Amino acid sequence: MSYLTDEKLVILGSAGAIGSNMVQTALTLGMTSDVTMLDPYDKGNEGAAEEIYHCSFPGANVTWTSDPEEALTGASFIISSGGAPRKEGMTREDLLKGNAEIAAQLGKDIRSYCPDARFVVVIFNPADVTGLVTLVHSGLQPSKVATLAALDSTRLQTRLAQHFGVPQSNVTGCRTYGGHGEMMAVFASTASVGGQKLTDLIGTEQLTEEDWEAIKTHTRQGGKRIIQLRGRSSFQSPSHHALLMTKAVIDGRGYPWPCGCYVDSEEAGFRQILMAMETHIDADGVHWTLPSGTEAEMADLRASYEHLTRMRDEVIEMGIVPPLDEWSSVNPTL
Amino acid sequence: MSYLTDEKLVILGSAGAIGSNMVQTALTLGMTSDVTMLDPYDKGNEGAAEEIYHCSFPGANVTWTSDPEEALTGASFIISSGGAPRKEGMTREDLLKGNAEIAAQLGKDIRSYCPDARFVVVIFNPADVTGLVTLVHSGLQPSKVATLAALDSTRLQTRLAQHFGVPQSNVTGCRTYGGHGEMMAVFASTASVGGQKLTDLIGTEQLTEEDWEAIKTHTRQGGKRIIQLRGRSSFQSPSHHALLMTKAVIDGRGYPWPCGCYVDSEEAGFRQILMAMETHIDADGVHWTLPSGTEAEMADLRASYEHLTRMRDEVIEMGIVPPLDEWSSVNPTL
Repeated sequence: MSYLTDEKLVILGSAGAIGSNMVQTALTLGMTSDVTMLDPYDKGNEGAAEEIYHCSFPGANVTWTSDPEEALTGASFIISSGGAPRKEGMTREDLLKGNAEIAAQLGKDIRSYCPDARFVVVIFNPADVTGLVTLVHSGLQPSKVATLAALDSTRLQTRLAQHFGVPQSNVTGCRTYGGHGEMMAVFASTASVGGQKLTDLIGTEQLTEEDWEAIKTHTRQGGKRIIQLRGRSSFQSPSHHALLMTKAVIDGRGYPWPCGCYVDSEEAGFRQILMAMETHIDADGVHWTLPSGTEAEMADLRASYEHLTRMRDEVIEMGIVPPLDEWSSVNPTL
Repeated sequence: MSYLTDEKLVILGSAGAIGSNMVQTALTLGMTSDVTMLDPYDKGNEGAAEEIYHCSFPGANVTWTSDPEEALTGASFIISSGGAPRKEGMTREDLLKGNAEIAAQLGKDIRSYCPDARFVVVIFNPADVTGLVTLVHSGLQPSKVATLAALDSTRLQTRLAQHFGVPQSNVTGCRTYGGHGEMMAVFASTASVGGQKLTDLIGTEQLTEEDWEAIKTHTRQGGKRIIQLRGRSSFQSPSHHALLMTKAVIDGRGYPWPCGCYVDSEEAGFRQILMAMETHIDADGVHWTLPSGTEAEMADLRASYEHLTRMRDEVIEMGIVPPLDEWSSVNPTL
């Protein structure tokens, strides 16, 4: 078996459903031969590692540990699903604070142990905030940190394909931008169904305005729906996309969906935020361009951005990241 | 994205942990573009399918159903994890009756809906029995039905690598044969560690007789250990191997571990049984040769076979398969 690289990939949260799936998927894709599984829960992490050993990927070097220093030293690629899930009785703010603190520690650990990391993908929620906090504390360049945002776009694609009864691949250009929460901006003007522009279909018998609103709601609540159906949150699709994002840095063959990335542009009017934009990934990391959409779509994107700024400001108030004008003292590349 | 084939693959038990992992792995491997997910539990199956849709594998045609006729019609490849799961404290044998009945129905469904199936992999336990029952009722040629047996061998490889502190790939020739239950025959004479024959190491300071006995016990109880560590039975490693077995039929590139297959040889002294032998997989399916081992190892294999004949005779007594001398009236190729 050949691997694309032997650079070290660290999976955080590897005892969990997403994390253990990521280890398997990375090796199945032949992405790298060197995988370290990092999780504070030793027993479950050992169990997940044993399963990978029983796969017997030829030439793979898979280790597991609960020690961030051991795991991250020399790491090129890092994917973290290592947040805490929301538990009963927790407020949204409790979840925000807890996971933002985990993200801050991740950033500090990256700075301490692998300041030359080539790419970090953060996939624990709220990812727009945890990714941003990780970036600030890591000291990495903005292009080196991305968050998973694709599932909103692929959920839109899925639902449109189901509505029209066409193969999913025939639905193209599906795009959501901005935040990964329910305040995401769902674009219609970028999408086509079987070569026909979606905007020409909306408001026709084939796709009434009501249908389209229902599809947008379905897209926004795609994650909740998985919980309803499976009794657990998504784990296969986040794993798949986080790996493809990382693979694109290794093989330079691109990644076709929007990613969350750091945006700070006076021209665009989005400052010091992490959100999904039109992106491409290459060997240097993630790069964004401003989406183009209708006036209403761009207003939705603006609203999503404003929502994210409030969450960002909350974590500043919590003291988890410094005030905006002090970020460059923590991360000079910002 | 290109796929090795567009022949239909049906995953039974696709709402479950193994099954849903198999769907993802098949597509990640680019094995086939055509996957049908069959599970009686519609809600969970839809949830698992939605996750796959959210991965958005380009050009994939993934459908889900609870109707065996719809799923199996036109199927070339079938992998079934659709048995009842083993719970902590249960032996594989405890599952015998319920799962043997499920296997009989699977065989009958194959006969009814896809008599031209190219390869069937049965991975629900006790696989030696469920695979055999499936084969008898399916009417397929013996080479077309295999069971997952590799995990015992890879667990042996894993444990030896851990004992000697060497990379897993440096431990070669690990082989267990016979049954997939605790009565498996663990061979030492086929294995090497770093090029040194294992039989030359056993009984030395590097690997005392006690160490070796402990490793054999560990190998036999590898499945139980996963349950202890993860709180659930193995699902990633069974998925991985079942897919690689099937892929070997498609791409002709072989599969390096023993498989369970039908054995009926007067010369070898093993009659009308399904068990792990030295095997290879090609476009025609699975083919076996008699393992070669020491006298003691061959006696272990014989004991494992005798154990399996008793389990087989139990399912005959249960009326799930006919008496031995009537098998050819159900499946003329036996």
